[in-house]
Amino acid sequence: MQIAIVLFDGFTALDAVGPFQTLSPLPGAETVFVAEQAGPVKDDTGNLTFVAAKSFAEVTRPDIVIVPGGPDVPTHNDVLLGWLRAVDATTTWTTSVCTGSLLLAAAGLLKGRQATTHWLALDAIKEFGVSPTGQRVVFDGKYVTGAGVSAGIDMGLTLAGKIAGDPFAQGVQLMIEYDPQPPYDAGSPEKAPAEVVEKFRADTPAAS
Amino acid sequence: MQIAIVLFDGFTALDAVGPFQTLSPLPGAETVFVAEQAGPVKDDTGNLTFVAAKSFAEVTRPDIVIVPGGPDVPTHNDVLLGWLRAVDATTTWTTSVCTGSLLLAAAGLLKGRQATTHWLALDAIKEFGVSPTGQRVVFDGKYVTGAGVSAGIDMGLTLAGKIAGDPFAQGVQLMIEYDPQPPYDAGSPEKAPAEVVEKFRADTPAAS
Repeated sequence: MQIAIVLFDGFTALDAVGPFQTLSPLPGAETVFVAEQAGPVKDDTGNLTFVAAKSFAEVTRPDIVIVPGGPDVPTHNDVLLGWLRAVDATTTWTTSVCTGSLLLAAAGLLKGRQATTHWLALDAIKEFGVSPTGQRVVFDGKYVTGAGVSAGIDMGLTLAGKIAGDPFAQGVQLMIEYDPQPPYDAGSPEKAPAEVVEKFRADTPAAS
Repeated sequence: MQIAIVLFDGFTALDAVGPFQTLSPLPGAETVFVAEQAGPVKDDTGNLTFVAAKSFAEVTRPDIVIVPGGPDVPTHNDVLLGWLRAVDATTTWTTSVCTGSLLLAAAGLLKGRQATTHWLALDAIKEFGVSPTGQRVVFDGKYVTGAGVSAGIDMGLTLAGKIAGDPFAQGVQLMIEYDPQPPYDAGSPEKAPAEVVEKFRADTPAAS
């Protein structure tokens, strides 16, 4: 089983690493980071560089595709969107975290489906004919989307359980000691202080 | 304010990325990934490569040091341990995630202190004269240690709040949409099913 995690300049690191850490332990999994060209790819801060082990041309039939997001995802990159459409024809699961779902949507893969994305992009994804939900992890057929950034951990664990069973996924959760104890309860726009939410809404263009 | 995140062959990716994603947004922060030599460094799965932007020799006075862990951390690497001791002399905060605390302990920085580590390494860290606690994030003076892997997110958010105030840290939590909803309640040995816990204990050598 091949798991392909997509990289592009400006990806958010935790979007990619949450599902990586929870899905790469799957029995028989071979995980590969893939980009338009093999080699270094910078994250959205410019301070963290991952290496794409293979190019899109070298990865043609992944079983699982994981698309991270970022603050400005390349929804007009035809090479990336074309690759997503091509491999989706034979994937078992096509997944995203955060605004990665905007890329799946821009590729036409989520039309008429339910999905989620980063809370600041819930309006933007509607423009692609997608119905956003308020859930943290959304399954619609083989399409699995997670909400913003850290939701990739929950998405990965949920999918690991579907693929390899609950005890396996519980073992992954235990190994990554995922017993979250955030120091605040500010992880969604419904829970964060109103002035914190408004600051981000004011700073964000209508469509990302 | 310079934040140095240490890399070494066999690090666990999420250990590094949790604090990276929560601390690198700090106002005025410059985050640098650092290793014995600049260049590619492989994680514990061998499937994910980060690029260290600088060598230890190039980073001599970081304000914050973050040490990730891994299943087999290099507690006998004198270059790494020597660098940790040298920079610790002038850091504001010296921190770790998971078994990264074994490296701080092996460098002699945690002797007589309270700290935490991955649940499977709580006995191993005692051998360095450290008192492990059952807490997910432990502060002892300027030394901040997080429990296994995903605890780096909680560690980073907590430290971000101490440095830049609660509203700032709440904003970071909101941007990474850290509103955890794990599909299981198996994130600690006290909560996971006994047979899942025992499987890992049986597979793990007494000291990691």
